[in-house]
Amino acid sequence: MFTAALDTAQRAISDFLEQELARLGDDRVAAGMRYATNGGKRLRGFLALESASLFDVPPAQALFAAGAVECLHAYSLVHDDLPCMDDDDLRRGQPTVHVKWDEATAVLVGDALQTFAFECLADPRAGSADQRIDLVATLARASGAQGMVLGQAQDIAAETAATPLTLPQVQELQRNKTGHLIEWPALAGAILGGADPTPLRQYARAIGVAFQIADDILDVTGDAATAGKALQKDAAAGKATFVSLLGLDGARAEAQALVDTAEAALAPYGNKAHNLAALARYIIARDK
Amino acid sequence: MFTAALDTAQRAISDFLEQELARLGDDRVAAGMRYATNGGKRLRGFLALESASLFDVPPAQALFAAGAVECLHAYSLVHDDLPCMDDDDLRRGQPTVHVKWDEATAVLVGDALQTFAFECLADPRAGSADQRIDLVATLARASGAQGMVLGQAQDIAAETAATPLTLPQVQELQRNKTGHLIEWPALAGAILGGADPTPLRQYARAIGVAFQIADDILDVTGDAATAGKALQKDAAAGKATFVSLLGLDGARAEAQALVDTAEAALAPYGNKAHNLAALARYIIARDK
Repeated sequence: MFTAALDTAQRAISDFLEQELARLGDDRVAAGMRYATNGGKRLRGFLALESASLFDVPPAQALFAAGAVECLHAYSLVHDDLPCMDDDDLRRGQPTVHVKWDEATAVLVGDALQTFAFECLADPRAGSADQRIDLVATLARASGAQGMVLGQAQDIAAETAATPLTLPQVQELQRNKTGHLIEWPALAGAILGGADPTPLRQYARAIGVAFQIADDILDVTGDAATAGKALQKDAAAGKATFVSLLGLDGARAEAQALVDTAEAALAPYGNKAHNLAALARYIIARDK
Repeated sequence: MFTAALDTAQRAISDFLEQELARLGDDRVAAGMRYATNGGKRLRGFLALESASLFDVPPAQALFAAGAVECLHAYSLVHDDLPCMDDDDLRRGQPTVHVKWDEATAVLVGDALQTFAFECLADPRAGSADQRIDLVATLARASGAQGMVLGQAQDIAAETAATPLTLPQVQELQRNKTGHLIEWPALAGAILGGADPTPLRQYARAIGVAFQIADDILDVTGDAATAGKALQKDAAAGKATFVSLLGLDGARAEAQALVDTAEAALAPYGNKAHNLAALARYIIARDK
């Protein structure tokens, strides 16, 4: 039931992005934007759709927030994969944008995908003016110099730090680097529903950390072919991770505890939140 | 009188950006953002303030649009200066961001400046929700894959094209690369003023082209020390410019004709537009 719902959401988000990006024309940047937003698990977009559905927001409306967060996420991956950043050749099993085209194209594709995320949120079909500007303000805060970009800078700084980070430092780094952009789509659902965001924020904070712990576990135990990207990079770089700090068993126990916290936070929504609860469990059970 | 008005606007915009960027903290990305937005002519910000003043929009409100367009412009310069793009070491007489820090920092600083531009526009002090989302939508369109970023991609493609571009192709490239982001602040004034944007759009389109023609003339006749950046790059690269296509005299005549067009478009605003008229004349008379 959950996998069917995720599958439906993935297809709806892919169709939405294909349609919205089609009007950008045929040049190289537009082609790169379509390439970079193709595939992926769409977990952030799914979160937006499911959070919005708690408050009976029409999916056709929530798709603008879902598409925006997927474009924002895709931009961060394109720039993160650049030679001057993580220097990755493979993403979702395909050559990264700078490998398929070149570095200049990858810079511009990332830039334009960020812009496009805000363009999605500004679309009149995305909500009332009040809702749309609230979505813009919160996405900007989650992704900018005090959110995702700060986390990326902290991650780069950690690679050259004299001593590995402590657990609180890893927690802060990961909350910035990936947590804020997992919290945002849950918050977006509450904004579109005109609802108190507190329970969804608690839920999303917990699954954000669980997601990163699962990523750290996958980096150690996973299969690169299944994951579609290079693994074992953190250990090779001597980076502190949840696994290096808590051990494999400790990391697994912590991830499970966070999933329990996340599920408990969904209590106010009753059975309407069953897909969100299943998503929390899926996040630590996935193999890619 | 014009130079005093420009000077006042420059200081107001610098103070605004300093204050708004101060809350981002002390890390490397925030420091790079402050560095990259320091200095410059602030012509786009000035355009926003002057256009808004036609409709008696308070400067304290219009500063959010002025600051946003200056952050957007600064982001485009930081990324454009990267080794994989124009590979420039000097900007406004100072080392470019990737020279002062490194490439990864420059990518992140540009990314965060783009985000910050939208954050400025989403600020409740920037206008009503309707005005703010209209500012976001139009800035996204002006700067994204059908605006500035498209122009940058066209510029890169032109460098490796088998034959130099024709005049209509150069006009289209420049309208995308620099024109849209000169038009936007004029449009922003009309949005904040709840006014018909048509005359301001005509004015801004004309000065946008005049600005680029003046840049092409400066690239040939200017002094690198005064300009604070490398010159004679276009001729060395064999790129088609307004000067290579029209000749120096032809380019000067065309720029003057565009300034006349721009001044005529301001007629509906009478004497209130005297600074905008002076700006049009300044744009082709500047030496940097």
